[in-house]
Amino acid sequence: MSISIAHLGPSGTYSEQAAVAYASMFLHPIQEETILCPYPSIAKTLKAISLGQVDLAVVPVENSIEGSVAITLDMLWQLDNLRIKLALVLPIAHSLLSNAQIATIETIYSHPQALAQCQGWLEQHLPTVRLIATNSTTEALQKLDQESKAGAISSPHAAQLYDVPILASSINDYPDNCTRFWVLSSSVQPTYGSHTSLAFSTKANVPGALFKPLQVFAQRNINLSRLESRPSKRSLGDYLFFIDLEGDATSLAVQSAIYELICYTETLKIFGSYDVLLL
Amino acid sequence: MSISIAHLGPSGTYSEQAAVAYASMFLHPIQEETILCPYPSIAKTLKAISLGQVDLAVVPVENSIEGSVAITLDMLWQLDNLRIKLALVLPIAHSLLSNAQIATIETIYSHPQALAQCQGWLEQHLPTVRLIATNSTTEALQKLDQESKAGAISSPHAAQLYDVPILASSINDYPDNCTRFWVLSSSVQPTYGSHTSLAFSTKANVPGALFKPLQVFAQRNINLSRLESRPSKRSLGDYLFFIDLEGDATSLAVQSAIYELICYTETLKIFGSYDVLLL
Repeated sequence: MSISIAHLGPSGTYSEQAAVAYASMFLHPIQEETILCPYPSIAKTLKAISLGQVDLAVVPVENSIEGSVAITLDMLWQLDNLRIKLALVLPIAHSLLSNAQIATIETIYSHPQALAQCQGWLEQHLPTVRLIATNSTTEALQKLDQESKAGAISSPHAAQLYDVPILASSINDYPDNCTRFWVLSSSVQPTYGSHTSLAFSTKANVPGALFKPLQVFAQRNINLSRLESRPSKRSLGDYLFFIDLEGDATSLAVQSAIYELICYTETLKIFGSYDVLLL
Repeated sequence: MSISIAHLGPSGTYSEQAAVAYASMFLHPIQEETILCPYPSIAKTLKAISLGQVDLAVVPVENSIEGSVAITLDMLWQLDNLRIKLALVLPIAHSLLSNAQIATIETIYSHPQALAQCQGWLEQHLPTVRLIATNSTTEALQKLDQESKAGAISSPHAAQLYDVPILASSINDYPDNCTRFWVLSSSVQPTYGSHTSLAFSTKANVPGALFKPLQVFAQRNINLSRLESRPSKRSLGDYLFFIDLEGDATSLAVQSAIYELICYTETLKIFGSYDVLLL
């Protein structure tokens, strides 16, 4: 039996590292063959799992420095059939890779989140280089063959994979840099675990639209580990709220909170319960 | 007397449009000469106002489709001396500009927020083009002289300014697209207006860390028009919360709320009170 896992590609991305870690821990090494399926964007990765073209998808949700990955939240809301099976937290240590000498580098390519996470280092050490965004940290490496004065920000793992020298290691501005990924399936089966994620829209222009939903959880001593707002895309000032709470959706407290929450929300979506694993 | 206004450049950006609108409404046409000061990034625009190199700065805070401009919130927290004088809401209508025929375009340049706001249109009409991020929508136009098969997403105003043909108009996926800007000064004088913005960190690992601050406002019937979380950059799961509320910071209700809020927060910063103007 084979299990296909969609992730942001090409090979060597942090998303692939998270997918490989998941497969090595949760799939049976002999009975279940893992097929890694790289996609050129997070949006296409999520569409593939939603359409049932793959069995699982691993996508980044949040980085400890740069915050939410907006496209992941926006698409999870739009695509109605995705369930979170697990959260994986991966430590991130960016390196500067290039075939050139550091003094000759004129352009640096990487994913916008990686460029943002190294902006202080870049400003200090390479203040005049041009920074150009790519779809992933490994897509950036493909530029190095075409341009002799280019560098890329990527992982030590990708440096090894693509055989590119590391010019500087751990160049992220904050040492405690990690990214949380979600492992998603398109099954409608309920999932279980220590955390539950949900999102809701509120009835427009109701004062205290967010206070009542939060009260529902506070009254039951359910701790929220994260609250994130995203534009509803209907009008400026109209939001969706994404909440991660500590508790399983089948527990009595969470069930009664969700039941009451329906009264204070316009549309409510439950994305599943899952455990959080530090890699 | 001259008033210098920092904004994201080069000339022709939406930020410049907002700066010009501010100057035409609030500066005296004869006594106050406006000097527009374009900067290559939002970060550098904010540093310029913080260091007193300019009198005012106009920066984007939030787009109705793509959400918060993270660098603006992060830097407002870090730079301690900025005050919000006014909010301006500018309607956004992106155009595709190029000297080439639409069928021959291979690469499209623009600011990441503009590319994201047109992703549906691009996928439908130009599914195979490469999308490349630039620091601003007008920096993208500078590529068109160097590359014959390139296009840029920018405003009709920029098309006129740089004399580039418009190949398609209003290509943003959602028609109700607007961006909110803040006009900032580095004065420590209190500001007045219909809205007040503040941000706080909470004591780590306190259950319900956000509920108590929200209760402070709900109990006084103070409506929150926006709540946004950003990573504190200390560790994953530790956040700052940015709140916009309806009310002036000198009103009795808001003053007593802020006084109580101090008990439930670790660090609290008030960014000022201001009116919101639709352009």
